Amino acid sequence: MKLALAGLGKMGAQIAKKLAEDGHEVVAFDLSKGASDALAALKLKGISVVTTKQAVLDAFNGEQFVLWLMIPSDFVGDEIDDWIKVLPKGCTIIDGGNSDFRLTQKRAEQIEAAGLHMVDSGTSGGVWGYNNGFSLMVGGNQDAFTAVEPIFQTLAQPNGAYHYFGQAGSGHYVKMVHNAVEYGMMQSLAEGYRMLKEGPIKDIDLPAAGEVWQHGSVVVSWLNELSRDALKENPELTGIDGYVAESGEARWALETANELNIPLPAIQAAFDVRLASQKGETNFATKMLAAMRNKFGGHTINK
Amino acid sequence: MKLALAGLGKMGAQIAKKLAEDGHEVVAFDLSKGASDALAALKLKGISVVTTKQAVLDAFNGEQFVLWLMIPSDFVGDEIDDWIKVLPKGCTIIDGGNSDFRLTQKRAEQIEAAGLHMVDSGTSGGVWGYNNGFSLMVGGNQDAFTAVEPIFQTLAQPNGAYHYFGQAGSGHYVKMVHNAVEYGMMQSLAEGYRMLKEGPIKDIDLPAAGEVWQHGSVVVSWLNELSRDALKENPELTGIDGYVAESGEARWALETANELNIPLPAIQAAFDVRLASQKGETNFATKMLAAMRNKFGGHTINK
Repeated sequence: MKLALAGLGKMGAQIAKKLAEDGHEVVAFDLSKGASDALAALKLKGISVVTTKQAVLDAFNGEQFVLWLMIPSDFVGDEIDDWIKVLPKGCTIIDGGNSDFRLTQKRAEQIEAAGLHMVDSGTSGGVWGYNNGFSLMVGGNQDAFTAVEPIFQTLAQPNGAYHYFGQAGSGHYVKMVHNAVEYGMMQSLAEGYRMLKEGPIKDIDLPAAGEVWQHGSVVVSWLNELSRDALKENPELTGIDGYVAESGEARWALETANELNIPLPAIQAAFDVRLASQKGETNFATKMLAAMRNKFGGHTINK
Repeated sequence: MKLALAGLGKMGAQIAKKLAEDGHEVVAFDLSKGASDALAALKLKGISVVTTKQAVLDAFNGEQFVLWLMIPSDFVGDEIDDWIKVLPKGCTIIDGGNSDFRLTQKRAEQIEAAGLHMVDSGTSGGVWGYNNGFSLMVGGNQDAFTAVEPIFQTLAQPNGAYHYFGQAGSGHYVKMVHNAVEYGMMQSLAEGYRMLKEGPIKDIDLPAAGEVWQHGSVVVSWLNELSRDALKENPELTGIDGYVAESGEARWALETANELNIPLPAIQAAFDVRLASQKGETNFATKMLAAMRNKFGGHTINK
């Protein structure tokens, strides 16, 4: 199908390429000239890069269309406010980023009230999604979802990699929980590798441990695979400060859990470690976290 | 090669079968008539089941041999004391169970002083090791390891699923850390599924979330695969009390970390939840833990 994609960063550019390669027609838009130019330079069949919102609208000649937003969560509210004013009635906005599900619920009301439709999609897979297929957690207007399902079929791995979970915000909710789990799993691995590095038995071969753990052990996981790879390339994690950003989802999950009196002690511990790392409490474990984030998300290795 | 295997429980019986199928000759021994009879009844080529220690010794006619112990860690010390008295000089004892690495270090001295050799092997893979290949973390006498390496080649997956880490106890140390990581990863997933189950958005399809998370997301892992399977079979985890045993390794890891002033907050949180579950603090998250343990280790689902 023909759709517009706003946001051509690390994730957005991959999504554009994956959609175009599967026969979709993508009108790609980013306010950043660097991001627009980078994608335009690839001259890919099925992707037309435009540089203004008006050009996006013009590309659809006043017809209804689907607009996929793939932008940092801080900007989603303002972007939706802007688009609502200009989109033809009946258009569908898909927020494919990591928005707070509570804001998504409010935005869905605002969007539906404006005669438009809202679909929220939590999108996991990092910079590997283009090759591996994305994992997509979807919520929002069910009819609108059904109409745009070919997009999800293209982006996801076959057989179960996307699912419509129900009411507006439920896609972002499941993705928020996913990311909170991710924090806890990363922290557990990072603590383990620190214990191998700094424990009472010296000179344990960490890359070899990562390799063994990745073959038939109970901790087999993509995060361990990336940990092993990072350690093979840089066993001492030289040049990594150990500063680890938090991008909101675990914070929102903890807020939500606190309101419901649900303890999340492992996720809380992982979150606290990231906050402390930002105040200078860094160590081999937080370096491992930074190395993992770099591997799966292309995140900068230092502050 | 020809070896003796003492301990024919869930793990031991699988190891015997896997070794025999690859051409090794296994003299299999268990004090429990039930375990011995169960393996003997399979009448497998390459396995002879005996019921006394003397019969094990007789099977080797006074020659040096390799004895693999696959028994609960509480019994390892006494078993080694007994075997040391009767084994021919030059025999190698492999402790394949989850012994405390600090005890393994002492036992290695005791065994080597008796003219025997000691190899310690942390063995992961649960009840799936027979099909999937085991993950083996090895330490101890290096010459003895080299001599018995064909055993590890048979039991492990190809290309990196076993590794010799060095001095006595290092295999059990790496396995202890592995299990501590496992506790933290399990706890993180369990907290996430509880947030899906009991969060503000009702009727989220948990098995579908597990499926989506298993396709290209950052939390792809064997533990999530097993969580998904458990939820598909029993979405409400009906009939699971939520009591979760701890088998020592995380406790030892935390003791070791505390001595070295290394904080392990996520692993500590996971350990605390298990202790609390044993005092009745059970919930959907601890039910998930019990379901996962059942899936990978065949552990009983309730107390």
